[in-house]
Amino acid sequence: MVTREKTIFSSMRKEVDAVVLMNAVEPSMDSCFFYATGLVTGLFEGCVAILEPRRTEVLTSELEALSASEAGVKTTVFENGQESMRLMAKKLSRFSKIGINARELTVANHRKIRKASKGAKLIDVSQDLYRARMIKQPDELARIRKACAIASKTCVAIPEMVNEGMTETEVAAELNYRMMRLGANATAFDSNVAFGAKSAEPHYFPSPTRRLKKGQFALFDFGASYKRYVSDITRTFICHSSTKRQREMHETVLRAQEAAIDSIVDGVSGATVDDAARKVIDSSEFRGLFIHSTGHGIGISVHDPGSISSANDMTLLEGMVLTVEPGVYIKGYGGVRIEDDVLVTKSGCRVLTSCPKELRSI
Amino acid sequence: MVTREKTIFSSMRKEVDAVVLMNAVEPSMDSCFFYATGLVTGLFEGCVAILEPRRTEVLTSELEALSASEAGVKTTVFENGQESMRLMAKKLSRFSKIGINARELTVANHRKIRKASKGAKLIDVSQDLYRARMIKQPDELARIRKACAIASKTCVAIPEMVNEGMTETEVAAELNYRMMRLGANATAFDSNVAFGAKSAEPHYFPSPTRRLKKGQFALFDFGASYKRYVSDITRTFICHSSTKRQREMHETVLRAQEAAIDSIVDGVSGATVDDAARKVIDSSEFRGLFIHSTGHGIGISVHDPGSISSANDMTLLEGMVLTVEPGVYIKGYGGVRIEDDVLVTKSGCRVLTSCPKELRSI
Repeated sequence: MVTREKTIFSSMRKEVDAVVLMNAVEPSMDSCFFYATGLVTGLFEGCVAILEPRRTEVLTSELEALSASEAGVKTTVFENGQESMRLMAKKLSRFSKIGINARELTVANHRKIRKASKGAKLIDVSQDLYRARMIKQPDELARIRKACAIASKTCVAIPEMVNEGMTETEVAAELNYRMMRLGANATAFDSNVAFGAKSAEPHYFPSPTRRLKKGQFALFDFGASYKRYVSDITRTFICHSSTKRQREMHETVLRAQEAAIDSIVDGVSGATVDDAARKVIDSSEFRGLFIHSTGHGIGISVHDPGSISSANDMTLLEGMVLTVEPGVYIKGYGGVRIEDDVLVTKSGCRVLTSCPKELRSI
Repeated sequence: MVTREKTIFSSMRKEVDAVVLMNAVEPSMDSCFFYATGLVTGLFEGCVAILEPRRTEVLTSELEALSASEAGVKTTVFENGQESMRLMAKKLSRFSKIGINARELTVANHRKIRKASKGAKLIDVSQDLYRARMIKQPDELARIRKACAIASKTCVAIPEMVNEGMTETEVAAELNYRMMRLGANATAFDSNVAFGAKSAEPHYFPSPTRRLKKGQFALFDFGASYKRYVSDITRTFICHSSTKRQREMHETVLRAQEAAIDSIVDGVSGATVDDAARKVIDSSEFRGLFIHSTGHGIGISVHDPGSISSANDMTLLEGMVLTVEPGVYIKGYGGVRIEDDVLVTKSGCRVLTSCPKELRSI
């Protein structure tokens, strides 16, 4: 396995001797812990990673010792919480400036690190960690590509998988099953399947009673997780035949998505890309109905650092992987979203997901 | 929907005017946010719940506004991070003592709450929140029961679902599919399917290349999520015929699990129950190979507050729901774990999962 202390310290702008990443209990896990250590299997609740410029060490309970040792990460096993604190105190005693990840560390674990590192200064290096995470390394890209391939294949099969009358959770079950059979280790997140008016709710959860009816939009937003790296794709279909308004909605979103993708290149600002998509929608009859930003980073988490947004503007750089996912949402009627994952390159971007984008029927 | 401010404040031992729960970005979400608000659908990243003794209010982005309003929770929508901070400052200005959940709140969000509540004292009430969460209310129990029924039905079907030669992820795909088709909204966690030596790794992740072979243990640890409440079940099978040692391992774990279940009753200490299971294993040839505690709470999260453990001893009380899951793990050889979910009652406990427990063949 690849541990990433070199990448992390080379993008560090604050001066620290070490970085300490500590997980709490699910779901309060630090995604930088997994990014930094490269650990693929195992849960690692309550575990600690100590990164120095040239070494990474994991303090773990017996439960994860096998996962860690098989991955080839330097590991020390503790028996219980007290021993973990003693170990941490011993390991941290050499450092006077210790970096922490304030965006994911819990307040209770912060207290523990402070206690264990008595006297040392704790410095929030989350921005530096996130800056490192945004530029994907070749081994990370390979896993993202695999996750994208699995989601794409699953997406292509939607018309043969889904029929009028199926419930949203039945369809989610089919999507998840297909991804796992194609080699996903897990789903990237709980698949979102939304029919009719529910497609206007961007973070909807599928219902076991809601059935697909003729004339409804059917929105599928899902992704695969492969060795902890994820993909994220959305397509919106129509059950049987569409109305003119539905076709116009879909066409507008598609044009917005293509405008955004066309504008992506190393060095462009996220706000510019967001604007490219938003302009298309806001100059149509669906003005003001694109209620979220255009995209977010993906990688070890589904909402990885980085965004394509005017509110959180940033420069897109070669090696970043982001979603491009404009949408139009009409309350009580329905929504359309089209989402692909792209890798920013020197000369533009490479679209990592592939699935027909025209409005198709189920 | 049921908001739980009444339950929470009645178990509050610290004096606070309000409790503020704030989510960060997935996976750093506060499970108490969902417990307190009762919100079933939606993601709620960056959202805030403000609980007072007689009212609960959620500050949310447009993205989750529909989920929140449909659930009947009092909601105020913010447009961006700045507006969220302004809103929070306005809402918190009335309070001088504000409770926070230090076990799940991130350091960065703690800083935001401190800024928004200038002058107010922030008090860690995580213990009080967790005390409330441990005793399940009837509506919570109904969902847990449903999640248990789904996992049990799936578990019963394992012999017809799994065959020699299948890979671990193929089987995980089948388990997940079956649970979703039975009405689960999602899996409770990434299903753990482990064959042969890998069954000795309690938090193993299934592999897409590892195939089930004759004579191997096959361990299945999985659960369903139903309206955000979960179940968690484990059974260990044998592929074709077992050796004497394998039967003895399984028999020992089964006796340990039954001893633990038999000892559960309102008022018993977790350490006593843990000891009941451990004594069986430690007086057998598998002494010392039960490397984790006997159980943990389940509810809105898979590792909910509460445990059956000697290290974190606590009194089990009527209304708590916990797993009972002793195991024996032999590195390089294999492991056996048997896990059920139980509800503590006045006179003993009720086992909520049901699936044959003798060593069965695949």
